[in-house]
Amino acid sequence: MNRKQTKAVRVRDVWIGGGAPVLVQGMTKTDTRDVKGTLEEIARYAEVGCEIVRVAVPDREAADAVKEIVRHSPLPVVADIHFDYRLALTVIEYGVDKLRLNPGNIGDRDRVEAVVKAAKVRQIPIRIGVNSGSLEKSLLQGMGRTAETLVASAARHIKILNDLDYDQIVVSLKASDVPTMVAAYRLMAESYDYPLHLGVTEAGTLLQGTVKSAVGIGTLLSEGIGDTIRISLTGPGEEEIRVAWEILKALKLRDRGANLVACPTCGRLQFDMWPVVEELERRLTKVVEPITVAVMGCAVNGPGEAREADVGLAGGKDMGLIYRHGKILRRVEQADMVEEIWKEILAAAEEVRLSGKGAQRSHA
Amino acid sequence: MNRKQTKAVRVRDVWIGGGAPVLVQGMTKTDTRDVKGTLEEIARYAEVGCEIVRVAVPDREAADAVKEIVRHSPLPVVADIHFDYRLALTVIEYGVDKLRLNPGNIGDRDRVEAVVKAAKVRQIPIRIGVNSGSLEKSLLQGMGRTAETLVASAARHIKILNDLDYDQIVVSLKASDVPTMVAAYRLMAESYDYPLHLGVTEAGTLLQGTVKSAVGIGTLLSEGIGDTIRISLTGPGEEEIRVAWEILKALKLRDRGANLVACPTCGRLQFDMWPVVEELERRLTKVVEPITVAVMGCAVNGPGEAREADVGLAGGKDMGLIYRHGKILRRVEQADMVEEIWKEILAAAEEVRLSGKGAQRSHA
Repeated sequence: MNRKQTKAVRVRDVWIGGGAPVLVQGMTKTDTRDVKGTLEEIARYAEVGCEIVRVAVPDREAADAVKEIVRHSPLPVVADIHFDYRLALTVIEYGVDKLRLNPGNIGDRDRVEAVVKAAKVRQIPIRIGVNSGSLEKSLLQGMGRTAETLVASAARHIKILNDLDYDQIVVSLKASDVPTMVAAYRLMAESYDYPLHLGVTEAGTLLQGTVKSAVGIGTLLSEGIGDTIRISLTGPGEEEIRVAWEILKALKLRDRGANLVACPTCGRLQFDMWPVVEELERRLTKVVEPITVAVMGCAVNGPGEAREADVGLAGGKDMGLIYRHGKILRRVEQADMVEEIWKEILAAAEEVRLSGKGAQRSHA
Repeated sequence: MNRKQTKAVRVRDVWIGGGAPVLVQGMTKTDTRDVKGTLEEIARYAEVGCEIVRVAVPDREAADAVKEIVRHSPLPVVADIHFDYRLALTVIEYGVDKLRLNPGNIGDRDRVEAVVKAAKVRQIPIRIGVNSGSLEKSLLQGMGRTAETLVASAARHIKILNDLDYDQIVVSLKASDVPTMVAAYRLMAESYDYPLHLGVTEAGTLLQGTVKSAVGIGTLLSEGIGDTIRISLTGPGEEEIRVAWEILKALKLRDRGANLVACPTCGRLQFDMWPVVEELERRLTKVVEPITVAVMGCAVNGPGEAREADVGLAGGKDMGLIYRHGKILRRVEQADMVEEIWKEILAAAEEVRLSGKGAQRSHA
C-alpha cells in the first residue's frame, strides 16, 4: 500500500509521519493527579503495545502531576489541554513530550500564540485536536457539524502556528459519526501534509466502538492516510491498544503477536472446535512474535489455510491434522489438540525470535 | 455515498443488488441433519436481524434435511455445496432459495452445467463463492494465492453460467488476508456488475475477527462496493449478525437499534460512568428503533454530543445533565442516572415508532 507522504514530527524517542510506522496511542483514564495510579496505567498500556500516551490536564494540580509522570513514564507523554492555556505553559516547562490543544475551546489567538512560542523554544510538537463535539461556535453556526467544518477549524489553528513559523504539527479531526470523520481526514490529506492522528471519537463500548473505529480508521489507512491512531472505547484502555494493533495487523501495516485464522464452523464440523480456539486465543495473548496460526473445521478450506500458516490444524471426525511449514506433521485426537498445537506454536515463536524478526518500533 | 450499480437478484422475498439495502447474511453452525436444531438457530438469527441464512450440505442426509428447513425457515435459505454437485440437484428440487457453489471444488464443467440448467428452470440464483483456502490447483500453481487468482476463479465460472445464458449470479471472493480480499473485490467491481457478497473468511475470534471484518468490509462498503455481507466469527452466529449490523450502521447504510455514543473517559471524569454505560448497553440490545444515545464524561465534548443525540447525558461531579431534543431537561444524581436516562430512551423509541421510521427491509 502507498502511504501518503507526510512531514516527520519527533515525540521524545519516536517519530510520527515521514514514513515511520503507524504508531499506537493510548490515553489514561486514571485521575491525572494520582501520579502512582497514572504511572501504573501507563505501564499496563506499554505492556500491550502502546507507543505514545496522553494524559488529561484539567487543572493546576494535574499539571503539576505531569512533572513526575513525564519523568517516570517509559512512553512519550502528551498533555491534553482544554480551556486554560496556562496549563499548557506549565507542562511545557515540565518537559512534556507533546501537547494536544483543542481549537474549539482553547481561546483567543493571543493565548494560542503564547503556547506556541513556549513550545517552539523546546521544539515540543503540538497536535491540533479538532473534535466534532467541541467545534467553535462561530464555525458551527455558519457551516454545521460537517467534515468541512472540522477541516476549517484545524486550518485556522495551522495558520496561527505557521504565522509563528512553527511546523511541529500533528492534526486530528475526530467525529463520532464515521462517514463525517472519514470525509474530514480525506479532505485534510488532500490539502496539507502534516501527519494525521486518526480516531473515531466517543465510539462507545467494546463491540460498537471497535466496529466504528475499525471501519473509519481502517478505511483511511487502506487509502494510505494516517500516521498514528487512537481507539476510544468506554472501558479499560488496554482494550483500546489491542484493537489498535488488530487494525494495523489486519492491514499488514505492523506486526505484533499472533494472527489467529479460524473458521466460523458450520454444519460440516465434526469435532469440538470452539473450546480449542478459545484456549489458544487466551494463551496467544502472551505471544509477541508475529506468527500465523490456523485452526480449521473441515476439509473445504482447512488444508489450504493450514498449509499457509506457521502452525495449522485441519479438523476431521474427532481429530485433526497438524501442519508446520505447509506439511502435515501428525494426527492428533480431540483431547490432545490444544497441547499439541501449543507445542508447535512455541516452536514457531522461537524460530521467529532466533531469526530476529520482531515487532518494529520507530525510534528517533 | 454512491453505491456501485449492480444487477438485482431475487432470493425468495428479498433482493440482493440493484440498489436494494445491503443485506445481512448468516450461516448456521448446527449439524444440518438436525432439522429442529437448525430451525431454532435460524429463528435466533432472525431475531437479531439476519436476512438470509445459509446451511452447509455436506451429504445426502443433510440435503434431505434442507427440504424441511426451507419449508419452515422464516428466512430465505441458501444451500452451501462443495465436492458433490448431485447434492445441489437435490436441494434445487426441494425448492431451496439460493445455491452457493465453490468453483475450487465442485468439479468439471459438465457437473456445473447440470446444476446451472436445473437452477435456471426454477430461477434459483447461484453464488459463485470463491475462497482463498480452496482455489483450483490449476490456478494456484500459475498465479499463487492473489487477488487476481480469486477473480480469475470467479471469471471462469461466470463464463460457464453466461454460456448457458444464466445471469442470476452473486459473487464472493473471500480471503483470510484482508488486503487480498479488498483488492479482489475492487478488481471484480471494476470488471463485472454482478452483486457482490462481501466477507473476510476464517476471520477468527470475536475481537480479531470483528476487526478484520470491519476493516475489510468497511473499506469496500465505504467505496460503494458490496450488496450483502456475512461476518465469519468462531463463536455463536448471533454475534456475526450483530457485528454485521454495527458495520452497516457505522457507515449509515442501514438503521437498526441504538447508536450508543460514549466517551472513553479520562482523567477529567468525576462520576462513575462505565457501569452506567454497561447497563444501558445491556438494555439497549432490546431496542430496535434507530435512536442515538450519548453518555459523556465531562464538559469538553459532553454538551456538544448530548445536544446532538436523541437522548444525552453530559456528566459533572457525581451528577449529570440529561438532554432531549438538544435541550437540558434536568439534573440527575449518580444513583438515579441509569433509570432516568432509560425513561428518556423509552420515550425516544416510542416517538420513532409513532413516526413510522424503523429498520427497512428489501422485500421483493
